Amino acid sequence: MAESSKEYYVGVDLGATKILAGVFDEKLNCLGKAKMSTKSQRGPEAVIERVARCVGDAIDECDLAAKQVRGVGVGAPGASDPESGRVIFAPNLVWENVPLKKSLEKRLEIPVYVENDCNIQTLGVHEKELKGKPRHLVGIFLGTGVGGGLILDGQLYSGFNRTAGEIGHMVIEVGGPKCGCGNKGCFEALASRSAIFRRIQSAVKDGQKTLLTDMLGGDLDDLRSGDLRKAIRRGDKFVEKVVEEAAEYTGIAVANVINLLNPEVVVIGGGLMQALEDEMMAIIIETAHDYAMQGTDKGIDILASQLGDDAGITGAAVLVRRNSK
Amino acid sequence: MAESSKEYYVGVDLGATKILAGVFDEKLNCLGKAKMSTKSQRGPEAVIERVARCVGDAIDECDLAAKQVRGVGVGAPGASDPESGRVIFAPNLVWENVPLKKSLEKRLEIPVYVENDCNIQTLGVHEKELKGKPRHLVGIFLGTGVGGGLILDGQLYSGFNRTAGEIGHMVIEVGGPKCGCGNKGCFEALASRSAIFRRIQSAVKDGQKTLLTDMLGGDLDDLRSGDLRKAIRRGDKFVEKVVEEAAEYTGIAVANVINLLNPEVVVIGGGLMQALEDEMMAIIIETAHDYAMQGTDKGIDILASQLGDDAGITGAAVLVRRNSK
Repeated sequence: MAESSKEYYVGVDLGATKILAGVFDEKLNCLGKAKMSTKSQRGPEAVIERVARCVGDAIDECDLAAKQVRGVGVGAPGASDPESGRVIFAPNLVWENVPLKKSLEKRLEIPVYVENDCNIQTLGVHEKELKGKPRHLVGIFLGTGVGGGLILDGQLYSGFNRTAGEIGHMVIEVGGPKCGCGNKGCFEALASRSAIFRRIQSAVKDGQKTLLTDMLGGDLDDLRSGDLRKAIRRGDKFVEKVVEEAAEYTGIAVANVINLLNPEVVVIGGGLMQALEDEMMAIIIETAHDYAMQGTDKGIDILASQLGDDAGITGAAVLVRRNSK
Repeated sequence: MAESSKEYYVGVDLGATKILAGVFDEKLNCLGKAKMSTKSQRGPEAVIERVARCVGDAIDECDLAAKQVRGVGVGAPGASDPESGRVIFAPNLVWENVPLKKSLEKRLEIPVYVENDCNIQTLGVHEKELKGKPRHLVGIFLGTGVGGGLILDGQLYSGFNRTAGEIGHMVIEVGGPKCGCGNKGCFEALASRSAIFRRIQSAVKDGQKTLLTDMLGGDLDDLRSGDLRKAIRRGDKFVEKVVEEAAEYTGIAVANVINLLNPEVVVIGGGLMQALEDEMMAIIIETAHDYAMQGTDKGIDILASQLGDDAGITGAAVLVRRNSK
């Protein structure tokens, strides 16, 4: 087939701190990427301008022209209306009712499709990693926060207000640690990167010894997920225990999902999982099977996603492919 | 329309202790019922024989003949395969892989349809009480245990192993009270009738004063949900507090469901709710809105079902109506 008759899709992962854009071919191979800071404090129009620029950079990086691109998919943090392409509300961007699709289409002159970022990541994993096979899939993404996405009966499920999948705010320990949402004992307050860091920093303040302070200094300001892995591999039992506890909470959350939704596959992704898969995954799987009701978890796969940071842009490209067929 | 051209459906609620059968007309009016003990210790074939007899009694009670009935729907406790009509496993009946549909059809010579009991109850509430309107509905049933059913995109959702909706075993208090399933801190161990009774009986053993012992004697052997209501209305602050706590846990479970599934309506039924709606419902609603993520619960209704014990037989009749159209 001649180069010019090929189809290309652009996927955008619009985060609170960075914008990532990737160009994909029909087989979902990523041909090139571009990255830019979000600068959400400048307001929606300025951010959308930056998204347009980032898309342009990614297309240019691949030596393509805009007219060769079938469409641009955007995963946005918060509730979105796929039909109108509006972001209904996105607390992390301080956006409310922003006409993302319309505004971006005016700039790019390419069709734009908008979805929630965790839905998009789940879609990316479903289509690229799992070849579209599982009929029911739950995606759980462990990072600074914890998000989730649902594919039920082969379709993205987003519920009445299009906010389904907020698994990070499922309470699993009534009266537990305070969460950013104002409640206590949410999954996110127990097993996100922030929750792990908070526990470590507070213990260090109370005199806990850890290799992390040798590596990074006493205030642990630059702590990253990878540092936890390094400390554990060098034999730091304290860090190991904190990470194990987070894995146990994650396993309980997975069991709750299996009991309630009985999906065929639960996939766990996000930056924390990418850095600590070897340390967390076996514990997550064991705990999930322990807590799932007997007989309900038979044949259900609990997997770590290998897509990492690319899950968002991949899923956004899938969204375009689905819509432009 | 002549009597003889009317359509009738029989709905059966097959429980671990009793069998309830009801005859319904096309508008889901209940024309007559019959009831029988289950006697599950006699084994599957004997129980199915009793179901057949109970169905016959209900039809006879309405002065109808079997040939006037379009079909029999059965709500069975446990995982069922609607296509084959087999009960895959039902721990409370000690059934495994029982060909309920085939065996009952042989006895009755009427088409039989089988579904999980909590799915069936949710279907009954959806069609009769809510006129089939909500696109996404979650049913939560508080009784001896806690069960749930899901209608997503207008259809019963049962997941990969057909066991979805096991909301009673969602962990909401890690390390909390022991549950019948072997884990700790399940919703069922915190807010079912058994959980409430256990907390009261254990406090009484430790010297707690309550009107319940005046009403029923010191061992509280015959305690029923209605007694709790009576004690509260007579001013028993201890019982009031225990019931309030169960309502708070239920509200948290409802919030978890709203965060994860974002249904249009959450309906709460079951014997405990029927007896204690006035005491529990306001607290459940308030707590659910407190714990739901901001913006996700807008316009979502949290309702108490008024169908009570009839939810199961009504839903089973709906199942027949859906299948015989």
